[in-house]
Amino acid sequence: MCGIVGYIGDDQAAPFLLSGLEKLEYRGYDSAGVAVYNGTSLQVVKAKGRLKILSDMINGGKDVLGTVGIGHTRWATHGKPSDINSHPQVSDSGKFAVVHNGIIENYLALKDLLIQKGINFVSETDTEVVAQLLEYYYKGDILDAVIKVINKVEGSYALGIICEDNPDQIIAVRKDSPLIVGLGKGENFIASDIPAILSKTRDIYRLNDNEIAILKKESVMIYNTDKEIIPKEPCHIDWDISAAEKGGYQHFMAKEIMEQPKAVRDTISPRIQDGKIVLDNITLTAEQIKGFSKIFILACGSAYHVGMVAKYILEKFARIPVEVDVASEFRYRHPIIDDKVLVLVISQSGETADTLAALREAKKLGARTLSIVNVVGSSIANDSDDVIYTWAGPEIAVATTKAYSTQLAVIYLLAIYFADLLGNLSKEDYAYYVSQLQELPDKIAEILSNKEHIQFLASQFFNVKDVFFIGRNLDYAMSLEGSLKLKEISYIHSDAYAAGELKHGTISLVEDGTLVVALATQNKLFDKMMSNVKEVKARGAVVLGLTTEKNTKIEQEADHTLYIPEMCEMMLPSLAVVPLQLFAYYVASMKGCDIDKPRNLAKSVTVE
Amino acid sequence: MCGIVGYIGDDQAAPFLLSGLEKLEYRGYDSAGVAVYNGTSLQVVKAKGRLKILSDMINGGKDVLGTVGIGHTRWATHGKPSDINSHPQVSDSGKFAVVHNGIIENYLALKDLLIQKGINFVSETDTEVVAQLLEYYYKGDILDAVIKVINKVEGSYALGIICEDNPDQIIAVRKDSPLIVGLGKGENFIASDIPAILSKTRDIYRLNDNEIAILKKESVMIYNTDKEIIPKEPCHIDWDISAAEKGGYQHFMAKEIMEQPKAVRDTISPRIQDGKIVLDNITLTAEQIKGFSKIFILACGSAYHVGMVAKYILEKFARIPVEVDVASEFRYRHPIIDDKVLVLVISQSGETADTLAALREAKKLGARTLSIVNVVGSSIANDSDDVIYTWAGPEIAVATTKAYSTQLAVIYLLAIYFADLLGNLSKEDYAYYVSQLQELPDKIAEILSNKEHIQFLASQFFNVKDVFFIGRNLDYAMSLEGSLKLKEISYIHSDAYAAGELKHGTISLVEDGTLVVALATQNKLFDKMMSNVKEVKARGAVVLGLTTEKNTKIEQEADHTLYIPEMCEMMLPSLAVVPLQLFAYYVASMKGCDIDKPRNLAKSVTVE
Repeated sequence: MCGIVGYIGDDQAAPFLLSGLEKLEYRGYDSAGVAVYNGTSLQVVKAKGRLKILSDMINGGKDVLGTVGIGHTRWATHGKPSDINSHPQVSDSGKFAVVHNGIIENYLALKDLLIQKGINFVSETDTEVVAQLLEYYYKGDILDAVIKVINKVEGSYALGIICEDNPDQIIAVRKDSPLIVGLGKGENFIASDIPAILSKTRDIYRLNDNEIAILKKESVMIYNTDKEIIPKEPCHIDWDISAAEKGGYQHFMAKEIMEQPKAVRDTISPRIQDGKIVLDNITLTAEQIKGFSKIFILACGSAYHVGMVAKYILEKFARIPVEVDVASEFRYRHPIIDDKVLVLVISQSGETADTLAALREAKKLGARTLSIVNVVGSSIANDSDDVIYTWAGPEIAVATTKAYSTQLAVIYLLAIYFADLLGNLSKEDYAYYVSQLQELPDKIAEILSNKEHIQFLASQFFNVKDVFFIGRNLDYAMSLEGSLKLKEISYIHSDAYAAGELKHGTISLVEDGTLVVALATQNKLFDKMMSNVKEVKARGAVVLGLTTEKNTKIEQEADHTLYIPEMCEMMLPSLAVVPLQLFAYYVASMKGCDIDKPRNLAKSVTVE
Repeated sequence: MCGIVGYIGDDQAAPFLLSGLEKLEYRGYDSAGVAVYNGTSLQVVKAKGRLKILSDMINGGKDVLGTVGIGHTRWATHGKPSDINSHPQVSDSGKFAVVHNGIIENYLALKDLLIQKGINFVSETDTEVVAQLLEYYYKGDILDAVIKVINKVEGSYALGIICEDNPDQIIAVRKDSPLIVGLGKGENFIASDIPAILSKTRDIYRLNDNEIAILKKESVMIYNTDKEIIPKEPCHIDWDISAAEKGGYQHFMAKEIMEQPKAVRDTISPRIQDGKIVLDNITLTAEQIKGFSKIFILACGSAYHVGMVAKYILEKFARIPVEVDVASEFRYRHPIIDDKVLVLVISQSGETADTLAALREAKKLGARTLSIVNVVGSSIANDSDDVIYTWAGPEIAVATTKAYSTQLAVIYLLAIYFADLLGNLSKEDYAYYVSQLQELPDKIAEILSNKEHIQFLASQFFNVKDVFFIGRNLDYAMSLEGSLKLKEISYIHSDAYAAGELKHGTISLVEDGTLVVALATQNKLFDKMMSNVKEVKARGAVVLGLTTEKNTKIEQEADHTLYIPEMCEMMLPSLAVVPLQLFAYYVASMKGCDIDKPRNLAKSVTVE
């Protein structure tokens, strides 16, 4: 996720671009850049690192002259953070400058095509493809070129475009990535989020997918891809700035929960091409995968919980034994590792100190390493033999939601990919699982659209002291995360247990009114779960059951029920976690907790 | 552990023997038997199963005539529960009948010796050796024979002996197993515990080790092994019966905690012969062990926690990867198992339904199976390829203590045994670990002798609501059990965490006054643990530290400290668990909980 700003008017553009980017810095901080038309050509200044570096470089913007420009703060997706990979990206001749938020999924194919046409590329980014394509298609009418480009690219994008030949305009277009147009007097703006322009105007256009805005000083025209003008009503913003940064949500956590369909889609879609899973530049061969005696998953916190789910999934699909270990434990246990072991590390930030140290220990012992990381170019990404990125965008709330969901999505990709290479899946099964995976974002969205019921349930339980989550197998593994969400933001003492294990001790804590959240999404274990529900009910527990839509008989046992849509059972953890995130969120909200910054916790734990 | 009763007087012996055994039935219920002198010879009646079966067989004792007799209720140690293996055991000619509590560690060597002399054995018991030896040494003076026998046998014993040639007396002797003499008027008694005789007398002699009592109708004489008479003061019992069954303790749990030195010694000693570990009749060859690609440990509850410690120990000693799984989860996870996998199951009762089912699943998948079980002849013992028994004796309290400790002792035996067979240990290291193992019971006893300090600490914390146990590696694995003890009997919500993992979420639950029990027995992790202690202290936690005696610098960080003796680090979990058991016990006691029968829990969980 990145931040985009654009300005056209009578003032100097660069100082405003910097101040706008500053408001968007929560969206990314790998690198930043501006492109301004200086009267004769496009001047581009970019710098790796925090915005401050860029700002110092151009004297707060004063050194860059010109009144039309675009700016960008980056959260690396394709290509590591560097000056070259920063935005704006320009076309071969320098005629077009582009800032981009999102992912061009078919950029490699397009890049190959353009290279064959003799066009030179300088960066590793998908965005450069857009700039080059614009120039390639540009025959004097910029709108024609933009339409051709958006017909060609697949994926998600918010684009801000300026062109040397049309210095009186900025072009903006979006699909599945946010972009707004700000309406001023004698000046107009674009931005990926409202805070960037709130100092200038509160009147905006919200662009819909593939609506193309042409901004001039005195006008903004919106076109569809048939070059027809779209009438558009401006809307007036009356939020304050801090609310605006959260896109209208009260907390980043709520925003990030709601972003999950997109985050999961962004993570999955680019890796499914023509019905086949393509895992970036993974260099593992089928031979190597066949040779693995074991997969060791190392992680901390929620990423460790992803590992717990992954064990079931990878063992089922790849039939390779999986051991999941807490990273801080692994290093000191004198682990049994050799070059027949694949070590899979999972980390949102890519800087988790315990995980990084565990990764290095594993490498020292000769393991092959593969990481699942959200931050491009982070230490863990750099130190791994292979890396698969989650395209969740920056996560601000300390309690992870979309990072967990995208990490899990990568696990499915990996499991199906391995199973296929190992010959464990029939063609039909392969197609089935791939199609199920593609349905995941919509199913998550479906759950999110019913959040009021979860809010109601939270209102019934927000004052409880102790909560137990129980489940079996995948449900158990997932409930670890459900429990962690609740306790880390609401400070309610909760824990997750394998349902069959409760009677071996912990059930003695259950008393009248104790809340037990019972997950029962796995059909073959449904009846056993109902027995466990009866056990805790007999001791006075109030049971909140969670199952799929067809298992309505859960209502015979549970006091309250959360339903999730049906889908292939292995992927149900991705659905089941969503209502539990919402439950935790609403409970904490009703308790008045500092949701985005829970006490005692840091977002990225870079100490051991 | 077994129960012993003896009677000599004018009344019919058998009815009293049965009523006395009934009071001791908590000590064992595999089988029972009586031997009575009927005027011409010794009549022996025995039956497998509960005492009721024997009682019905002899019409409540009325069908067995005679006024001198001994009786026994058995908790199988050597030899499975059967009529033949029941006590009393008799000598070849039938002249001697013996009841025995304890373990004759060198019985196999003695048995071989006697077989070479042409003596026939009928049972698999160690006790039969005593009966045969008595007859072998008997030359007309029974006291001489008894002295020769006790000079010959090694191990622990409480013995009740009658002899056809001396029908006016019962001989009793003990070492490391309890035995008392009851003093009546014209009648006298022996018993392994007071309740058996409380209906007849409250005056008793407590026998010290290797004091030999000769009971006649009108007198009791006590001799030492030099045949000198020992003067003895009777003591008067003023407890009630229910207290007496608990050996003077308020709860079985306290009694069982205190029995741990003996239970661990009984489990270890018979398996160390001439400095070498001898694992009963384990049929695993060095070749087979070398061929194992993995050890899978399956268990529930505290036995699962033993498995968590065992993973560290077995991996260190045997360098074979170990996976520990909750038995109720294992069955349904489609586990990756083949004949290169050793499945180790752990269960006190040997009847734990989840564990039994997991064992059977593992066998079906082709695994080699080995069980660690406390109850001889139980289903799990019967169904395993090999079994190593813990000689903990019957455990009555629901919250396990001595079963955990003896299971762990077997793990050490197994780890050293495997390491030796695999050539992973030098002669010196082997000798070192064996000698450390032999010191374990005394070290445990040392901790138990300082229980007042733990009682004081419990008084400081018994009203807390939430407790977190933290540790790293072995300390983490052990703290799972420390936490379970506390929660299952005191109903305080407690959980154990890998100390490095706390900051990845759960630390948000720590607030002013939260009790954190921090285990730091492992030297190389001591400093890291102190950092974790500082982390929780900074959030207001009160810290109870647990470390070894030399690490006094823990007092700079922890608010309170528990020290355990120094010994080889791998065995420290066996020491560290003891103060935590006592802490749990005292906390629950101060809260007035039903310690031996915590709410919602059953001793042996024979349902899924």
